[in-house]
Amino acid sequence: MQDKGISSAVVGRLPRYLRYLGDLKEKGIERVSSQELSRLMNVTASQIRQDLNNFGGFGQQGYGYNVDYLYKEIGKILGLDREYDFIIIGAGNLGRALGGYLNFERRGFIFRGIFDKNPELFGTEVRGVKISPISELDSFLKKNNIDIAVLTIPKTGALEVIDTLVDNGIKAIWNFAHVDLDVPEGVQVENVHLSDSLMKLSYNISRYADDNKNGDKD
Amino acid sequence: MQDKGISSAVVGRLPRYLRYLGDLKEKGIERVSSQELSRLMNVTASQIRQDLNNFGGFGQQGYGYNVDYLYKEIGKILGLDREYDFIIIGAGNLGRALGGYLNFERRGFIFRGIFDKNPELFGTEVRGVKISPISELDSFLKKNNIDIAVLTIPKTGALEVIDTLVDNGIKAIWNFAHVDLDVPEGVQVENVHLSDSLMKLSYNISRYADDNKNGDKD
Repeated sequence: MQDKGISSAVVGRLPRYLRYLGDLKEKGIERVSSQELSRLMNVTASQIRQDLNNFGGFGQQGYGYNVDYLYKEIGKILGLDREYDFIIIGAGNLGRALGGYLNFERRGFIFRGIFDKNPELFGTEVRGVKISPISELDSFLKKNNIDIAVLTIPKTGALEVIDTLVDNGIKAIWNFAHVDLDVPEGVQVENVHLSDSLMKLSYNISRYADDNKNGDKD
Repeated sequence: MQDKGISSAVVGRLPRYLRYLGDLKEKGIERVSSQELSRLMNVTASQIRQDLNNFGGFGQQGYGYNVDYLYKEIGKILGLDREYDFIIIGAGNLGRALGGYLNFERRGFIFRGIFDKNPELFGTEVRGVKISPISELDSFLKKNNIDIAVLTIPKTGALEVIDTLVDNGIKAIWNFAHVDLDVPEGVQVENVHLSDSLMKLSYNISRYADDNKNGDKD
């Protein structure tokens, strides 16, 4: 697999390809041209060909792409040909929502544990997994081989658990806490800062309102 | 305010500036140099100066930036100098989590309604707001001036409510449903595709593992 030097923009687009290919698969469609995919996905056919060429290209002239094959290959590139064990730190609504998503399980992300500091939650379950005290995190990580920690706790809590996670060899952190994490090289971090996303909306709403007011578009 | 032609990359960085400036404010710090901000935020001082120059620049030579002033100005640029009323469609764990966030309220995003199709939820509350039947969405929107709809429902449900939202003049959609929305120009959409974000993690985990295996970095 030749995936050296792929831009993060391309990687960022792959999950979307996977989503559309999955939809086609579900409809029983076996092959698709870059033109059809282009129309569905609302991007240019040339962009699609360029993106997929990064991986050697999967299309055959005059045939298009084999949906099932392309779906599997993109899955492999995204590392979805293996399983990942994950735990959630923070059993509030967001943590419980993420623990409850069966879609993650289908993609190979296996929900192994959930931790909180609120004693009222200890022993209650999220999709069959018991909520454990955060004080047991260290011993849990020593006994189990966990790939990903999902942080759905406030900022201060997130900063408190980082060392425990890193010291126990966590490979990746999916960070919903509203803080930038400082981790050693080799620990992958993906941030989901929900407030930031919401502010992009407010920016676009006011920008559009200003444009329409000034430019008299109506 | 000169904010024509600002790249979306710059806009995307503004919430992070706001976060760090907010932290400084909380600590009672009144001014900050681009060097200090650079060290805190782990970006170059020249990037900071460039970013803030897009808005005319707020710094004074030899003084640095006035934290409170810069915080307010960036807030204005992001449209945070007014309030936005939002509703949530889908009262599952994720919908309830978003409805419960007091931080959104502090930023001026006011939680006005939450809708679901599950009768068992009708009448129960999320932070003082009653869960209503989705069948009442249309009449609710006609009676209330709502800016933003947050979609925390599955794909098919999301596609079903889009027309109702658009016909009633919704300004923006914060979309957590795993589908791309087709809306008229002028309706702002911000997607949060959680699975896509998780796949970036699995990509980075396997990429790093491959690099270390092949390159014998250890």
